[in-house]
Amino acid sequence: MDVVRATYEIETALPLEATVATIAGEQSTGTFVAVRGETERLTARHAATVESIDELPPSGRPPLPGASGDWSVARRARVRIAFPLHNFGASLPNLLAAVAGNLFELREVGALRLIDLDLPMAFADAYPGPGFGVQGTRKLVGRESGPLIGTIVKPSIGLSADELAALVREIVEAGIDFIKDDELQGSAPCLPLAERVRAVMSVLKPYADRTGRMPMYAFNITDDISRLAANHDLVLEAGGSCVMVCVNLVGLAGVHYLRERSELPIHGHRAMFGAFSRSPQLGIGFTAFQKLARLAGVDHLHTNGIANKFYESDEQVLASIEAVRRPFLGGYHILPVLSSGQSAGLAHATYAATGTEDLLVLAGGGIHGHPHGSAAGVRSMREAWAAAIEGESLDARAARVPELAAAIDKFGRR
Amino acid sequence: MDVVRATYEIETALPLEATVATIAGEQSTGTFVAVRGETERLTARHAATVESIDELPPSGRPPLPGASGDWSVARRARVRIAFPLHNFGASLPNLLAAVAGNLFELREVGALRLIDLDLPMAFADAYPGPGFGVQGTRKLVGRESGPLIGTIVKPSIGLSADELAALVREIVEAGIDFIKDDELQGSAPCLPLAERVRAVMSVLKPYADRTGRMPMYAFNITDDISRLAANHDLVLEAGGSCVMVCVNLVGLAGVHYLRERSELPIHGHRAMFGAFSRSPQLGIGFTAFQKLARLAGVDHLHTNGIANKFYESDEQVLASIEAVRRPFLGGYHILPVLSSGQSAGLAHATYAATGTEDLLVLAGGGIHGHPHGSAAGVRSMREAWAAAIEGESLDARAARVPELAAAIDKFGRR
Repeated sequence: MDVVRATYEIETALPLEATVATIAGEQSTGTFVAVRGETERLTARHAATVESIDELPPSGRPPLPGASGDWSVARRARVRIAFPLHNFGASLPNLLAAVAGNLFELREVGALRLIDLDLPMAFADAYPGPGFGVQGTRKLVGRESGPLIGTIVKPSIGLSADELAALVREIVEAGIDFIKDDELQGSAPCLPLAERVRAVMSVLKPYADRTGRMPMYAFNITDDISRLAANHDLVLEAGGSCVMVCVNLVGLAGVHYLRERSELPIHGHRAMFGAFSRSPQLGIGFTAFQKLARLAGVDHLHTNGIANKFYESDEQVLASIEAVRRPFLGGYHILPVLSSGQSAGLAHATYAATGTEDLLVLAGGGIHGHPHGSAAGVRSMREAWAAAIEGESLDARAARVPELAAAIDKFGRR
Repeated sequence: MDVVRATYEIETALPLEATVATIAGEQSTGTFVAVRGETERLTARHAATVESIDELPPSGRPPLPGASGDWSVARRARVRIAFPLHNFGASLPNLLAAVAGNLFELREVGALRLIDLDLPMAFADAYPGPGFGVQGTRKLVGRESGPLIGTIVKPSIGLSADELAALVREIVEAGIDFIKDDELQGSAPCLPLAERVRAVMSVLKPYADRTGRMPMYAFNITDDISRLAANHDLVLEAGGSCVMVCVNLVGLAGVHYLRERSELPIHGHRAMFGAFSRSPQLGIGFTAFQKLARLAGVDHLHTNGIANKFYESDEQVLASIEAVRRPFLGGYHILPVLSSGQSAGLAHATYAATGTEDLLVLAGGGIHGHPHGSAAGVRSMREAWAAAIEGESLDARAARVPELAAAIDKFGRR
């Protein structure tokens, strides 16, 4: 019998084993009173089963609201529960009903977090996942090795089409690999997608004609589901090579819907991820989330980078990058996207910690805010990464490359 | 200029006014360093503006991970920020990018929660909202007044088609208004939607032919987006009168996609709502969430009921019911769905606290677990509500109605 194994961290003031049994019951055959029809046959075929309970030290945090029991005796544990696949089938939305569903609302727990999911191959049969992945993206970009260096259009809101074109021109002339719209820039009436596509492609196409290489521009096509296909087609027909969606805003199901219709790589932004992940007591952790996003079909997924401006520690970021790079169901190779507060001075530390060149490193302010302009910002990133990969120290390279020295001076280093 | 007003509760150990300005900047014209092009013109047209900051007592909770500053001097506040609509347009996914997006990940805050949204009429133009609402549902059910009494198929998993049909037969013969699939029952290979529809309609249609009244059955059609329309059509063509989706599992965008194609009321289940709402420090509160769900097009939305088995207090539940019933953008009237641990003994307290009959009250175990069987469970609910509305005490009615007395004896009361 195929099963889905879900790993949770929970904390409870009630008897631990009974609480874990409640969780398994709530999400399979249980209800709050014994009801007729709930026979042994049914339980044997359909009940979720508790596979392990590994106790952890109590968190010391006050419980989430509504938790039952005397919290001074709370116990915390990592638990693993197996759910029969035939209860819900290889369907991402219905998988979530089983492994997440109402669990977060149980008063039996004062903390409950979905940490990881082990999925049977039936999900690989149902979900093709990334259509391009690491190698497909490299091929489209025309960069076989080294990290892909990218940037975000900033300011994210308010540029005219001409200003956007001028900005893109400056950056592509500096040899960038990748540019993305901001997550705020989906359907802005102040610069609609069709106009962005026209403005950007009016720069990229002549550049590609001249150089034989077209930087990838991820157009943010996030919108109502009914517009996703048309938005995608707009980009495709204009000769664009990537679309971006905010995974949590169109939903995992929305990403999969796009994937079924997409002929371009899908750049997955994780906006709103923090809403269900920043609390250590609640929600869904990145390790579980990224598997769902890969199944849904993203080719790139945001992980943040080290020394980012958001809340995540370097340790968390590095764990996220590692999770995204780990093969899953025999493949689903996608590019982790390192962003937020990234700049040239982080290249050596990032390379040392991740040990890979298969990264998409985005610097927004770290490129546009470079004291010598965006082109110098791109060069600082490229040189820093080349040095890191070649084994040359940041200082040594900076002594030879003034754009790098200026970047370190302005944005710092690790 | 049309604006969206978002209300947040935040807590920060950094200077309060500066932190709120950071939030407004992050979600509109800001980035982490001053960049070229960010001119005054652009700011004037596109910047989100802080409208109010009302300080609240500190929460006393430890901050979310990664919060900057010395938490012993943390300040908490309710803040209101206005976002120019032309930054993102009347698009639910892109609205969320602006008012939620990366905000939850800011290290400047140790707590941030989106509490409410005031939306301009442009959203009403873009989103038709509920196609049936309260009156349309009443009409289909054939019950002009009084609460709609409903139940959930339990056990949720593992019934055969014949067992399901037998269960439904028993319940409809008792005069129930509404039955729903469990949220776990979307696409279960062990009892696929097509078989559920066949089994249920084989009972409902003869019953309707005989009595002139067809109870509403909400078939859980939650699945990948591409299957929603076909699933809906399956129900429609079989003569069914309602479809159910888990709002957070197909996504708000998925609900809207279904709404554009639906000829039936959409029963909105809130599974996984707790993942981004149970922490008082993080995520999105019900008042904001229910507006988004109503725009997306649900006709019914789960609020829980008082004395429920989940974490929410009666105060929270009553606030949710009130929020769902409050007119919004000139309409969007939907039915609040009271569920979880509901039984006959709660009718008087619920009616007294809500002051309305426009409720869909679901009892799962409270009906199926009734000591005299499901039919007696239905009667106990109906009698209790009739008494509450007629002004007869629970005890007086129970003295006359043995099914009610048995229900109170088994499930308790308020």
